[in-house]
Amino acid sequence: MLPESIKNFIESFSKLPSVGPRLATRLSFYLVNSGNNEIENLEKSLANLKRIKTCQQCFFIYDETRACPVCSGKNRNKQIIAIVEKETDLISLEKTGKFNGQYLVLGGLAKSGELDPQKRLRLKSLGERIKKEPGGQIQEIIIALSPTTFGDFTSELVKQELKPFAPKISRLAKGVPTGGEIEFADEQTLASALEKRI
Amino acid sequence: MLPESIKNFIESFSKLPSVGPRLATRLSFYLVNSGNNEIENLEKSLANLKRIKTCQQCFFIYDETRACPVCSGKNRNKQIIAIVEKETDLISLEKTGKFNGQYLVLGGLAKSGELDPQKRLRLKSLGERIKKEPGGQIQEIIIALSPTTFGDFTSELVKQELKPFAPKISRLAKGVPTGGEIEFADEQTLASALEKRI
Repeated sequence: MLPESIKNFIESFSKLPSVGPRLATRLSFYLVNSGNNEIENLEKSLANLKRIKTCQQCFFIYDETRACPVCSGKNRNKQIIAIVEKETDLISLEKTGKFNGQYLVLGGLAKSGELDPQKRLRLKSLGERIKKEPGGQIQEIIIALSPTTFGDFTSELVKQELKPFAPKISRLAKGVPTGGEIEFADEQTLASALEKRI
Repeated sequence: MLPESIKNFIESFSKLPSVGPRLATRLSFYLVNSGNNEIENLEKSLANLKRIKTCQQCFFIYDETRACPVCSGKNRNKQIIAIVEKETDLISLEKTGKFNGQYLVLGGLAKSGELDPQKRLRLKSLGERIKKEPGGQIQEIIIALSPTTFGDFTSELVKQELKPFAPKISRLAKGVPTGGEIEFADEQTLASALEKRI
């Protein structure tokens, strides 16, 4: 009944997070009725995503044409590093205007009993980086992971890994409601959680 | 803070129905992390949508390479025509297996006091088509619009326009729950509504 092109569109787009077949179907008809300009605009937006690079130091993302905005920032304090789960958490912390250190994007939480190889590798590269600092340590590592079950669990694993590299390893204060996610916290709550870190 | 490519992506995709900035942001990071293959797959799906044509008789859609599957169907009864709001409603009716007539996709409901030019044009072209039938009438026109306020209102307008072209103008039975939308009705409810049309 449905044209192949629509079926293919629905199949591809329904695999995206929070999209699913119903929304994908709706989008396909919406786009067919919107016309080629609208479709080409989206194609271009998608194509441009391929220009995005991942910083090999903090694992945040940046445009091919520029350097990583966090790691290359002149006034950033290299003595404090915040470990975040994902890119949007880094952005949320930046928006508070209360953090001037550097970051490591972990790239997810530990779901099974241990950290997967990608996360271990990222933590290891951070360790190598800190080793080169005078004294082989930095002042503080803030584990800014969500205070959920998986977040708490991952925080413990990260803490074990990073113990040798800072005298102080803290977590965000529970200003963020327990069980909630950093992504949905408002800026003020997040700012206060940052100030009162445990 | 965010790379331009991501900002552009969020801007374009957040304009889509039911997407919005939060989901668009999430999708952008998801795609950057999924890699170029995944992105190119979506680009291709989008590009293929441009091959979709609209049938100038029933205004359903079909692949460029084929004819309209409804209008070109050999065993379709030209004496009964169902007026539907949108493409997915046509598909829902087809899925019941209880309708063997032809269709007209109206392309939306009347939101202000009257039908907009596009809808009037579609109804007019249907009228012209029926005029050429023997007797200048067909057996029945089923107005298969949702039993919502706008649907009821539009049905009345459509009925006025099409009065000269069929001795019987019906609507679907209210097996579809009042206030609900055709898109969300299950196949059996819809089949019974089709059988007991008013």
